[in-house]
Amino acid sequence: MKTIIKNVNIITMDNNMTEYKNGFVIIEDENISYIGNMAELKEDESAIIIDGNNGILMPGMINTHTHLSMIPFRSLGDDCKDRLRRYLFPLENECMNEKLAYYSAKYAICEMLLSGVTTIMDMYYFEDEVAKASEEMGIRAFLGETVINFPTCDSKDAFGGLDYSINFIEKWKNHKLITPFIAPHAPNTNDTNSLVKANEISKKYNVPISMHLSEMDYELKYFKDEFNKTPVEYLESIGLLSDRLVAAHCIYLTDNDINLLQKYNVKVAHCIGSNTKSAKGVAPVNKLLQHNIPVGLGTDGASSGNTLDIITQFKLFANFHKLENKDRSIFPAKDIVKLGTISGAKVLNKDNEIGSIEVGKKADLVIIETNSVNMFPIFDSYSAIVYSANTSNVDTVFVNGKCVVKNKKPVNNDLQTIREELKNHMQQFEQKAKEQLKKAIL
Amino acid sequence: MKTIIKNVNIITMDNNMTEYKNGFVIIEDENISYIGNMAELKEDESAIIIDGNNGILMPGMINTHTHLSMIPFRSLGDDCKDRLRRYLFPLENECMNEKLAYYSAKYAICEMLLSGVTTIMDMYYFEDEVAKASEEMGIRAFLGETVINFPTCDSKDAFGGLDYSINFIEKWKNHKLITPFIAPHAPNTNDTNSLVKANEISKKYNVPISMHLSEMDYELKYFKDEFNKTPVEYLESIGLLSDRLVAAHCIYLTDNDINLLQKYNVKVAHCIGSNTKSAKGVAPVNKLLQHNIPVGLGTDGASSGNTLDIITQFKLFANFHKLENKDRSIFPAKDIVKLGTISGAKVLNKDNEIGSIEVGKKADLVIIETNSVNMFPIFDSYSAIVYSANTSNVDTVFVNGKCVVKNKKPVNNDLQTIREELKNHMQQFEQKAKEQLKKAIL
Repeated sequence: MKTIIKNVNIITMDNNMTEYKNGFVIIEDENISYIGNMAELKEDESAIIIDGNNGILMPGMINTHTHLSMIPFRSLGDDCKDRLRRYLFPLENECMNEKLAYYSAKYAICEMLLSGVTTIMDMYYFEDEVAKASEEMGIRAFLGETVINFPTCDSKDAFGGLDYSINFIEKWKNHKLITPFIAPHAPNTNDTNSLVKANEISKKYNVPISMHLSEMDYELKYFKDEFNKTPVEYLESIGLLSDRLVAAHCIYLTDNDINLLQKYNVKVAHCIGSNTKSAKGVAPVNKLLQHNIPVGLGTDGASSGNTLDIITQFKLFANFHKLENKDRSIFPAKDIVKLGTISGAKVLNKDNEIGSIEVGKKADLVIIETNSVNMFPIFDSYSAIVYSANTSNVDTVFVNGKCVVKNKKPVNNDLQTIREELKNHMQQFEQKAKEQLKKAIL
Repeated sequence: MKTIIKNVNIITMDNNMTEYKNGFVIIEDENISYIGNMAELKEDESAIIIDGNNGILMPGMINTHTHLSMIPFRSLGDDCKDRLRRYLFPLENECMNEKLAYYSAKYAICEMLLSGVTTIMDMYYFEDEVAKASEEMGIRAFLGETVINFPTCDSKDAFGGLDYSINFIEKWKNHKLITPFIAPHAPNTNDTNSLVKANEISKKYNVPISMHLSEMDYELKYFKDEFNKTPVEYLESIGLLSDRLVAAHCIYLTDNDINLLQKYNVKVAHCIGSNTKSAKGVAPVNKLLQHNIPVGLGTDGASSGNTLDIITQFKLFANFHKLENKDRSIFPAKDIVKLGTISGAKVLNKDNEIGSIEVGKKADLVIIETNSVNMFPIFDSYSAIVYSANTSNVDTVFVNGKCVVKNKKPVNNDLQTIREELKNHMQQFEQKAKEQLKKAIL
């Protein structure tokens, strides 16, 4: 099967940041087989032709940290203090179930695909359901079951995620689009034993391990008080730092922490929207990059970041990091688009397959249309994406050579149906949520 | 003429923050004549019915600081150091002309209306052209000609804006939707004489005066070196502080500055997106509000902030001010929506006419649709607007009782035509811009 995407301004995000001002791309089966300028394009009646109408063709965006199934929490108690422990955890434990996790994941994936996200790294509960939803929706997904030190919505025992993960990894390890991994929730919500076990599972199966790290002020205080260490130093002391580790957030890092992350080739999922909305802080991304630590962008769950797209993160990233560094010229738009594409692929150790538009790579592609009012004029495609675009400019999306979004609509799914299914499974949640909300505000 | 907007969740933004979960609004001619719950709605065959499909009905948003005609600069040299003086000013002086100002303004107004902005405060050159464009597009507009200490694109003499303003104010002072004002560029780009004259004109005609204030580090340095004062203290010393003054930016304020702004009842247009993208800083809005200083939101020009909508500012405002204050519960979404509506109206001294949905007020209204993927679930309408929405959720817009946007399209204008007209007048600009860009980057 061959598809030609023509009349597009291609930003390849390859090593040389090659651009084709008026180009085309040929997709054969799952892969990109050719990239060229329009002048070279020959007629090919066997191919499906997609006219990009002078839009921007970019690599599919990579969301390196999210919780798909947390859709039901969106817009709920957003401005509460200590919302996670007072409010989200109890509601999750009471109301989250298999079906709700499944339908929520399906909804979230639909939302992400519509926004041009083609690869996600998700950690939550009922991860088997999330995998089914991912498979059905056709997104590229890294999925990890959470390990945590209390009974959860999908385990009556603390640390139930350890056993769950072994089965989960065994089941999904050879899937074309799904990569299972293991996800201890955070250093402070596990014990040394569970962290070490999780790491052994990651090592044995050679799958990633991902966790929240250096995100909470009380997390820092706990490790300071208990071990006189930072959370990163603690993880090093128990052998958890490795090139399989994707650490989400990493807001509060010392220089020694950064040296450790570099030494062990740890990767970082940076969630600027979630971290700033919750007033936590801005991770030192400039320093991380100076230490050659791969950094990707993440949205966090709909509960925390509200939007699930990378374009919103681009804009927030630009403004927060320029201000943080007191330099309007730091992180030019081009470098920010890198974080959401090729750099995200490096975080997932998949930069040989995805993250840029190159012959032989998987065809994960996005057309950003430039006919909408916010997209004119365009002197610089990267600027237009980072500073002007929003998700509604995403017109067409391919994952692994398959067109999943066309004319801003899902190709094989109906959004209203997915929403109705979710709504039908949200009734108990909705009722409890409203009760909890009253309590939390009092 | 009567219009009924039905099946909407109304957030009135009145003094009591009244909401109608399932309500309707009646518009008669220019005004809101009734607000009620759906149960009360009677059939009325004489009325035009607009079904809001359970969307959110909110007051039209107010953009208190912008430069409409700067559309051609969008995405041009975004990440250059000292972009304004090195790059924007020279290009503006060389290439901006009457026609370009007119077509750019038309385009920008179209973009704003599509995003739910119904009132703007603009300052630029060729303001008479901007007024024509505003009148044609049907937006509510406060328009001020710039006064500056060098020859400009519309004046061969420095301070030519003074004379221009007198004619401009005389011409437009009785217009229904247009309020002319006078706009000295900034304290440091004027001299005492021109500032005093501008203020006299403002006083004589009883029109607003607006200028950039405490925005630039070199502005602060200049007044410190020359007068041992802050820019605000300097303005006080020459009699410029008054309740007619709308000060844009106000990033760098001392406690004494804030006391002065309060004492003279000065208003502030806060441009969080523009100020942070340029790495300048975050204005102390929390303190300003504690001092009862009215604060509105502004986008600045497309050159600086890139987007021209208030919804983007909401999100940026939330994250920056929560982080700045290290408190996730400060500025709950409800208070942020206030800044873009009723508080903006206070900045313009028009809160008796616009800024909230109340019987007798002008019908400046926006329907935010909630069927798009990013708008579910909604436990809180304000949260959904601030944290989830983007401009593509704006479905229907009324200005002064007239429907100007319906089904996400301009009612009496064609976007593609407006874009083509602008493009045709941008050719010289485009060529020079590319030359300048090369020089500026070297």
